[in-house]
Amino acid sequence: MKFTQRTVAELLGAFASPQPTPGGGSAAALAGAVGASLLAMVAGLPKSRAATAEDTARLAAAGSRCQAIAADLATLVDRDSEAYALVMAAYRQPKSNDEEKAARSAAIQEAMRAAIAAPLDVMRACAAAAEQGVVVAAMGNPSASSDAAVAFELLGAGLRGAKLNVESNLGSVKDTSYADTVRGEVEEFERALVHETAAARRAQGVV
Amino acid sequence: MKFTQRTVAELLGAFASPQPTPGGGSAAALAGAVGASLLAMVAGLPKSRAATAEDTARLAAAGSRCQAIAADLATLVDRDSEAYALVMAAYRQPKSNDEEKAARSAAIQEAMRAAIAAPLDVMRACAAAAEQGVVVAAMGNPSASSDAAVAFELLGAGLRGAKLNVESNLGSVKDTSYADTVRGEVEEFERALVHETAAARRAQGVV
Repeated sequence: MKFTQRTVAELLGAFASPQPTPGGGSAAALAGAVGASLLAMVAGLPKSRAATAEDTARLAAAGSRCQAIAADLATLVDRDSEAYALVMAAYRQPKSNDEEKAARSAAIQEAMRAAIAAPLDVMRACAAAAEQGVVVAAMGNPSASSDAAVAFELLGAGLRGAKLNVESNLGSVKDTSYADTVRGEVEEFERALVHETAAARRAQGVV
Repeated sequence: MKFTQRTVAELLGAFASPQPTPGGGSAAALAGAVGASLLAMVAGLPKSRAATAEDTARLAAAGSRCQAIAADLATLVDRDSEAYALVMAAYRQPKSNDEEKAARSAAIQEAMRAAIAAPLDVMRACAAAAEQGVVVAAMGNPSASSDAAVAFELLGAGLRGAKLNVESNLGSVKDTSYADTVRGEVEEFERALVHETAAARRAQGVV
């Protein structure tokens, strides 16, 4: 059964159990999903600071986009755990002769790519939600400004938590050109989040 | 129905809906609950760096404590929303004469204290989990070090998210002596988290 179909209490129990999944990767995806959902809430409040029809439409579009990103991040809660399970299965393949060793090594490398793609997609989604969050922070109902600020805290934890998982898995990757490409994307998403978070704070008049 | 008894997908939908609860306060409590649960998982892994029976017992105790703190934080997901609902109910009280105005004002002040106590308890719980997290980071299975690091990201987001809610509600509090006491506690919990996070990073050799 998918983790997102369980109750919150059950999911917390699953995180706390010594079973390897769900782990930090799924937790990071969940943090991002909650952050994006809060932004969708703020964008959807009846009152807003949008003064023109154009701004109202921009705020509504940002809210819809955050809702879609939250749905993506929710699927990543499960995808991260599924990918990690495949990595463990690959490590358990037999290695009693050269042929088996080669097959096992290839399976590990393939599984690692999926286990990197999931948290990398979490980072991408958190950065994308933060971009929409600048619009929400600027035009959303000011009485919900703490909700928007909490959303940025969660998107930050989600993105940095996912980064830890990408980096942890990159240590086992042999293809250095692929690893360099991933490291470039990681830097890009992290820079984007820092930039959007600062922009949102300026929009809220915090800085 | 309590939010923690709903499915994860339903809770995300509730965060995203324009209904005022659950909001950022409940989201902060959830982030903390996931962080504390991840620490309990790392502490409970069969392998660890605990070299003596005393260290094994310390690690197990830290894990049990994190599990209990996660349970407290899960109840705070609901408590924060319930407290916020009481604040809104107090604001809706009639104010057509002086007597009603006085009663309404008193009800708001009382409701505000509960709405401050909930996120303040979230901060306290996140700081307490971080304290146990130093033991987990130092003695837990090193192959789960990214899970412990993600846990600290979530505890940080939970504590800072809760702080935003405390501060937002403190703006409506008239009793300055009570407000000063709360501000002192907020500073104390935030300082503790910064301290414990640095200690955990040193314990993991990240520095």
